[in-house]
Amino acid sequence: MASPTGQSQPNPALIFETLNAYQRTAALKAAIELDVFTAIGEGAKTSAALAKRCQAAERGMRILCDYLVIIGFLTKSGQQYALTNDSAVFLDRRSPACMDSVTGFLTLPEVMESSKDLAAVVRKGGTLMGDKAIADPDNPNWVGFARSMAPMMIPAAEAIAGILKADAGEKWKVLDIAAGHGMFGITLAKHNPNAEIVALDWPRTISIL
Amino acid sequence: MASPTGQSQPNPALIFETLNAYQRTAALKAAIELDVFTAIGEGAKTSAALAKRCQAAERGMRILCDYLVIIGFLTKSGQQYALTNDSAVFLDRRSPACMDSVTGFLTLPEVMESSKDLAAVVRKGGTLMGDKAIADPDNPNWVGFARSMAPMMIPAAEAIAGILKADAGEKWKVLDIAAGHGMFGITLAKHNPNAEIVALDWPRTISIL
Repeated sequence: MASPTGQSQPNPALIFETLNAYQRTAALKAAIELDVFTAIGEGAKTSAALAKRCQAAERGMRILCDYLVIIGFLTKSGQQYALTNDSAVFLDRRSPACMDSVTGFLTLPEVMESSKDLAAVVRKGGTLMGDKAIADPDNPNWVGFARSMAPMMIPAAEAIAGILKADAGEKWKVLDIAAGHGMFGITLAKHNPNAEIVALDWPRTISIL
Repeated sequence: MASPTGQSQPNPALIFETLNAYQRTAALKAAIELDVFTAIGEGAKTSAALAKRCQAAERGMRILCDYLVIIGFLTKSGQQYALTNDSAVFLDRRSPACMDSVTGFLTLPEVMESSKDLAAVVRKGGTLMGDKAIADPDNPNWVGFARSMAPMMIPAAEAIAGILKADAGEKWKVLDIAAGHGMFGITLAKHNPNAEIVALDWPRTISIL
């Protein structure tokens, strides 16, 4: 049907995609936990081979992998799955740029739980999690954050090193506040051997550096 | 940087988008629960006006609405929000095609919960919910399904009526198995006054027809 205004017909696809979007998170999280991407990279290409390698049911593996094809993390040709370029770089644990560890923090149960009743959060105008949950120096999640999020920050840290011309090797003093994984200071130090880095964070978190 | 293979640079954007995709579901669900789309349609255009109309904090409303702009459900010009064409048709409760009721079923806590540990579901090759939860005739969720999902099925029901040439008015007997909201049988009956519809479902569910 042609629309009288010349606009395209109303389409509820985005509404359904969005109401089901949480399933995308669940599928990628499951695939990382089951190490599907590494398994495919190593040569397990069919749902039968993957099921054996990842100790899962073949039916479950086939449905998961088909869904991963649909949402853009795998390709399929005949019965064989393959990694996309991005999956090979970022999700196969054998890749130096693998960032599967970020899943742990980004899908932390407490973090996901905080979006469960977002209407209540909007009514209040802030999180319903207590301050303690977020700003407690002893909250072990910040250690988890520091351990897991480094791969996500490398591109930004490299960009900063470039902008600051770290390779010129000037004598620097660098203060890395809330250093966490330390990646910003460490990257500058790698590019500039004359940089002295002071990294600051809560005791539990700084201890992993 | 140019890639030696001529392919585009590896990009982790899809990974982050997907690991955070559950937030899209939460935001749309919250906006529907707070009736933000109807409020904008009725003329509350700023975060201050929306906060008042939807009984929420202005800060929460501004952050929610800005996010809804980013994920494609609103537009923003200066400080004023507006509905997209699709939001006006499908999410403003004053629209006859409004399908905000589908949210209730699609984001049912039990349904969302079943994706929480999807790795375990894949290992098993099937849902971890008991049969009772799904196939129990007394499960009240099927009544909720029947009440809420009709708007989603109207386009398909209309398409079927067209394919079957219901408007020709032939004498028909129609058996609508697992009728639920009844929309498939009802749509045929609307197009064909000579169709006799028999709708079949579990007692609790059929009672809402």
